[in-house]
Amino acid sequence: MPDTAAQQPVRLAHLDAHRYRDWVARGGATVIVPAGAFEQHGPHLPMGTDALLSTTIAEAVAARTGAKVAEPLAYGYKSQQKSGGGDHLPGTISLDAAALIAQARCVLAGFLSQGVANVVVLNGHFENYQFLYEAADLALGDVRAAGIAGEGGSTPSVLLLSYWDYVSEATLAEVYPKGFPGWDIEHGGVLETSLMLHLRPELVEMERAVSHPPASLPRFDRLPVVAERTPETGCLSAPDGSDARKGELLFEQVTEALATDLRRELGTP
Amino acid sequence: MPDTAAQQPVRLAHLDAHRYRDWVARGGATVIVPAGAFEQHGPHLPMGTDALLSTTIAEAVAARTGAKVAEPLAYGYKSQQKSGGGDHLPGTISLDAAALIAQARCVLAGFLSQGVANVVVLNGHFENYQFLYEAADLALGDVRAAGIAGEGGSTPSVLLLSYWDYVSEATLAEVYPKGFPGWDIEHGGVLETSLMLHLRPELVEMERAVSHPPASLPRFDRLPVVAERTPETGCLSAPDGSDARKGELLFEQVTEALATDLRRELGTP
Amino acid sequence: MPDTAAQQPVRLAHLDAHRYRDWVARGGATVIVPAGAFEQHGPHLPMGTDALLSTTIAEAVAARTGAKVAEPLAYGYKSQQKSGGGDHLPGTISLDAAALIAQARCVLAGFLSQGVANVVVLNGHFENYQFLYEAADLALGDVRAAGIAGEGGSTPSVLLLSYWDYVSEATLAEVYPKGFPGWDIEHGGVLETSLMLHLRPELVEMERAVSHPPASLPRFDRLPVVAERTPETGCLSAPDGSDARKGELLFEQVTEALATDLRRELGTP
Amino acid sequence: MPDTAAQQPVRLAHLDAHRYRDWVARGGATVIVPAGAFEQHGPHLPMGTDALLSTTIAEAVAARTGAKVAEPLAYGYKSQQKSGGGDHLPGTISLDAAALIAQARCVLAGFLSQGVANVVVLNGHFENYQFLYEAADLALGDVRAAGIAGEGGSTPSVLLLSYWDYVSEATLAEVYPKGFPGWDIEHGGVLETSLMLHLRPELVEMERAVSHPPASLPRFDRLPVVAERTPETGCLSAPDGSDARKGELLFEQVTEALATDLRRELGTP
Amino acid sequence: MPDTAAQQPVRLAHLDAHRYRDWVARGGATVIVPAGAFEQHGPHLPMGTDALLSTTIAEAVAARTGAKVAEPLAYGYKSQQKSGGGDHLPGTISLDAAALIAQARCVLAGFLSQGVANVVVLNGHFENYQFLYEAADLALGDVRAAGIAGEGGSTPSVLLLSYWDYVSEATLAEVYPKGFPGWDIEHGGVLETSLMLHLRPELVEMERAVSHPPASLPRFDRLPVVAERTPETGCLSAPDGSDARKGELLFEQVTEALATDLRRELGTP
Amino acid sequence: MPDTAAQQPVRLAHLDAHRYRDWVARGGATVIVPAGAFEQHGPHLPMGTDALLSTTIAEAVAARTGAKVAEPLAYGYKSQQKSGGGDHLPGTISLDAAALIAQARCVLAGFLSQGVANVVVLNGHFENYQFLYEAADLALGDVRAAGIAGEGGSTPSVLLLSYWDYVSEATLAEVYPKGFPGWDIEHGGVLETSLMLHLRPELVEMERAVSHPPASLPRFDRLPVVAERTPETGCLSAPDGSDARKGELLFEQVTEALATDLRRELGTP
Repeated sequence: MPDTAAQQPVRLAHLDAHRYRDWVARGGATVIVPAGAFEQHGPHLPMGTDALLSTTIAEAVAARTGAKVAEPLAYGYKSQQKSGGGDHLPGTISLDAAALIAQARCVLAGFLSQGVANVVVLNGHFENYQFLYEAADLALGDVRAAGIAGEGGSTPSVLLLSYWDYVSEATLAEVYPKGFPGWDIEHGGVLETSLMLHLRPELVEMERAVSHPPASLPRFDRLPVVAERTPETGCLSAPDGSDARKGELLFEQVTEALATDLRRELGTP
Repeated sequence: MPDTAAQQPVRLAHLDAHRYRDWVARGGATVIVPAGAFEQHGPHLPMGTDALLSTTIAEAVAARTGAKVAEPLAYGYKSQQKSGGGDHLPGTISLDAAALIAQARCVLAGFLSQGVANVVVLNGHFENYQFLYEAADLALGDVRAAGIAGEGGSTPSVLLLSYWDYVSEATLAEVYPKGFPGWDIEHGGVLETSLMLHLRPELVEMERAVSHPPASLPRFDRLPVVAERTPETGCLSAPDGSDARKGELLFEQVTEALATDLRRELGTP
Repeated sequence: MPDTAAQQPVRLAHLDAHRYRDWVARGGATVIVPAGAFEQHGPHLPMGTDALLSTTIAEAVAARTGAKVAEPLAYGYKSQQKSGGGDHLPGTISLDAAALIAQARCVLAGFLSQGVANVVVLNGHFENYQFLYEAADLALGDVRAAGIAGEGGSTPSVLLLSYWDYVSEATLAEVYPKGFPGWDIEHGGVLETSLMLHLRPELVEMERAVSHPPASLPRFDRLPVVAERTPETGCLSAPDGSDARKGELLFEQVTEALATDLRRELGTP
Repeated sequence: MPDTAAQQPVRLAHLDAHRYRDWVARGGATVIVPAGAFEQHGPHLPMGTDALLSTTIAEAVAARTGAKVAEPLAYGYKSQQKSGGGDHLPGTISLDAAALIAQARCVLAGFLSQGVANVVVLNGHFENYQFLYEAADLALGDVRAAGIAGEGGSTPSVLLLSYWDYVSEATLAEVYPKGFPGWDIEHGGVLETSLMLHLRPELVEMERAVSHPPASLPRFDRLPVVAERTPETGCLSAPDGSDARKGELLFEQVTEALATDLRRELGTP
Repeated sequence: MPDTAAQQPVRLAHLDAHRYRDWVARGGATVIVPAGAFEQHGPHLPMGTDALLSTTIAEAVAARTGAKVAEPLAYGYKSQQKSGGGDHLPGTISLDAAALIAQARCVLAGFLSQGVANVVVLNGHFENYQFLYEAADLALGDVRAAGIAGEGGSTPSVLLLSYWDYVSEATLAEVYPKGFPGWDIEHGGVLETSLMLHLRPELVEMERAVSHPPASLPRFDRLPVVAERTPETGCLSAPDGSDARKGELLFEQVTEALATDLRRELGTP
Repeated sequence: MPDTAAQQPVRLAHLDAHRYRDWVARGGATVIVPAGAFEQHGPHLPMGTDALLSTTIAEAVAARTGAKVAEPLAYGYKSQQKSGGGDHLPGTISLDAAALIAQARCVLAGFLSQGVANVVVLNGHFENYQFLYEAADLALGDVRAAGIAGEGGSTPSVLLLSYWDYVSEATLAEVYPKGFPGWDIEHGGVLETSLMLHLRPELVEMERAVSHPPASLPRFDRLPVVAERTPETGCLSAPDGSDARKGELLFEQVTEALATDLRRELGTP
């Protein structure tokens, strides 16, 4: 394994602790924590889709920015009917709020207290966002209470984002030529399917995909869920028209936009 | 993807939810949840060693028994000096008890409440064990409180084990010809290094391994840790004499013993 | 106090427990729980704005549907910079996730376990939503674990919504003739100011309002907050062009849409 | 709205955050947090009685001392049979200990960390007291851990009290000419009824009040409650002899005594 | 050890589990759980006073009623200045609310789920009461959620009491010939000292007792505590006039009253 | 009571707070906290065995080292089948992880924050260990967050150990002439029985002891427990061959080894 950081693995789980220690000690280290879910994604996508996507995007962003990637949070918050079909569906194994917050809090506080300058939480499961925010806020409090400051006495920082917020208007127009249906019902739809076709084609079975109209869901969340409101596939919109080329476009545009944003915000190379 | 269960991926994250649903509905489904850690393992092993090993062993056991493998718990309980060198070492990012218990409880309760007949927690990080036990006990309570029974009204069950408890005396004798130093100081030592050399050789750098006498630690745990008691490498015993052949022996013997035990206990094929 | 339900106060805090008991016993009772926040809203709006608005809207909806209104959750989740200016601003007193979830869970479980058929959580503070969802899910689990079913053995239900999701396109076009800037930066802006000018004009001081361009915030959340990114007023968009007439329009349209939706969903009169 | 503090609203929810910020910055700011309950109070008093009373008393004390009043904690700890009739009664919607502590802790820590010199928790529901005490203790710990000191480096303080502890012997003698039955069974009795008749007569229906002997309860608490031990009204003593004049006497005497005590203790004007 | 229950030890910790099992199986078993504290009690009483007293009283009551005594909760809730001098005093080692509730909840749920018909929590530390109440309520919920009913399908019950609530007026008059100062300041005073002189004279050093006027404390609790408000001894009233005869009187009267009450309430012999 | 520390009681519950305060102020104070369980120990040993043994050993160690002994943690973590027979057995009353951690955390933080230099947790119940470790780690964090340092600015320390880890090979050879069966199945066996015969003979009934082969348990933990795997006695190995002489040997050797270790580690006399 070469000893220049750029040639070392971006995945921290594949790096040894001595190299990690030296990398952090050089200052300005950025760790990306991908967050996903274990969630049904219809008959054509695997249950690990959200973590696979956020992790792969994190690796690509890390490769462009000198950041490194922590192990993903592979289980996410309860799937909600309006964004993921609902937590009642087989194949969706979720954390409750306390579990997700506690796990993310420990991971973030761990990196921050070891001198990592910035932690970026890269979210790939809609329902996670607010709980990851709470985790970040609590972790920073933990670090403060333990009397730990960042390099040069500065406070370390956490950035939290969902990767789809970096899809540009231009990309949307190409991916959804008939008009974008909205992020909320993009569960098992064109975005995720195209990305998977580009990144993990061996895990996608387009011949099992089912065409159906997008889910028409009320403006409220109702619990317990009225199960019939979710299409039988478990997808909120059909993956009709997904292809690897769209996936490549999405992937390249998003990782570039994300890398640019991180460089600007964090002053990384 | 072929439609006979035996040919489908053992990793649930790679399977679609409809196939998962059908597999569970057939009855007798066993899901293995690997538990690991993100922990320094000296200069020659990667920080993800524990989760990599428990996941790979889980996959091999699943392939032999028809079980399937959930995403690993990639972060573990705080590293203790007497078994992992200590939680103060760079590269060790740990969960506290509440976070680990909460996460594992949700994951176990999730599978059990969907009709999975048996969940096997396959542990690869010494410090995790008791917290995983608590998670299993609480998850079964959750499932009971929700009024869910297993197939035919029987209670679903959880099995919890650490993979090294399946290393036989004969294997020990071969792997440690000069005598076995004890599991407690097998951190970054011959067992883990040999297994990694067999399973993930590209992640091991034997030329960075350091030979040193085994750690001599007191009978008590002291907190805060007296840092000098941990060898500088972070390993509690040196990996001297590790090789891929020993790794293969360990891996084959342990997976076979584990598969045999699960078949006998759970009545799986 | 007259003894027909329609003439009794819609606010449960003003009703006696015997009348409440009889009302619930008649079946089909719906209780609306308004959720707000105690949060800076710039120099021209009072800190209680979110709870005042959600409570007033709840009362109007209740008057139209025969529902009753519980005491509001007057403190909300931490203000986030991208939707509320940030939790660092004086005058923002927030609950953490655990506190908000615990409080809402107890309140919801309380009503559900007494035989209330439907609880509607009417949210008026953007950041609350996911935590209220968790509270609803946990409360329903509590009710199940306690062996309580709704009338006729049916499960009681919880509806969760934010009132701005009921603003129609037509209303938006009238309220924002130059184009709608997005709900996220509608903090202390035209919507809230106009509603307050209609409903609680004595608490608004338009002469203190400051005109400034809308906040330009990054796509990520950063913690700790970069304070300068929030406009000095604390508002994310200026209240320019707010007036009581717009407030009346918003109020009437939203309450009617909400009442209609509840009637359709819950079968209430 | 006039700009001298004395003329601004005492209710913080009605004040804007800029004025609040300036008021706190002047030093010595005291915020009163009223604590109540949502609890059955018999057939003649509304369920919001406890919060209505503690809030109104808080406003009067604030007007006399220059303090300001935060939004009340409108839900309280579980009603106990010996002081509130019991938590099993319809119309009593309670928080458990964790929820009440968490909520009050966040609110107190919020004000203290923004530089408020003193927070006074004014309790109006017997069962709350110990949980509010815990919240105060934990909030002060939070503020310390965050490294926040009060003005001039002094520690901010919390005062906790129940308003009935300020009823003088002379007042008692007038209000209860036949002898005081004890605070514990003053639930829905002469004190609360008279205060409500003075302060919120439109919410009291004396014609629905029922005369009955005071509850005779054992020296122990028993759980689950023996329901028949609570009088059918839900009141522990009858409101016989309540009138607005007694309410006025109680209100004036208590607010004056409380204001005097706060002035002496906190050095406020 | 004789095999009739009456001759077996009243302390469960001294009994074997087989005899316990048989005793419970006979039905109607009552277990008393003493609750105390580890708290400074001035210069003349030991720090374990509260648990020693509640345990000894529990044993005497058990001997009279056929009940048995569980191990005491030896650590109690934070000492408050108005009832115990304050939690800042050396020698006071306290549990926070969550810890005390969690511990008592587990202990109570444990006995109830094994078929014990009644658990009596006998409190000897003023500050504990409300947290023990919460524990009892939660434990009964746990037992219900686990689907456990008492003998004959009846719900098991918990009784909660403080032993001083059983001191009669007649006893008070004899013990305090100059008038009773109130339970709140009976910390390290005549009641506790006399009881200890009767029950554990070897642990009392009257020659170290200090005579001082009773503490004069405000009607509010203030945190952080104004330390000077607690007398230097740590006692809230002086033990002047304590003697073993008063202790015997108190002990005999209280245990008899308690035993009578339990017999009447629980139908035990 | 004599005033030299050596002659004062080793049990802190029997000491007054003023002497405790002075003892701590002299510096270098060591407090031993015994941890046990309330757990079935077969037909011949009492349910309090674990706490009785750890407390008695703690007292002997304290007498040799000048340490003092806090009240034991009398309830322990859930009994596991492989080390204690299982939590389903009558007479086993356990704490869950959260309760045990919370209780021990408060007790440890209490002593450490009062200036005690070292706290030694002396464990006597196998299942407790990891939860006590977590408590120690959290307590030290609490003390740090509160800004408390030990004497001379040094950090106070916690030592955690199980007493059986101090049994020497020589002692084992004498106590188990036919070979040592392993600590895991030493539940109600020769070690505990012999120690009790030496220390508390009046609580042991050897005539009720049952001879049976040691339990043969699988390498995994299974939940819910397969009850038949635990011998009917509840002991994992029979107490055959136990006697008071072995108990004395064990007791003397262990207390001496422990005292020696503490003196060396903590620099106590």
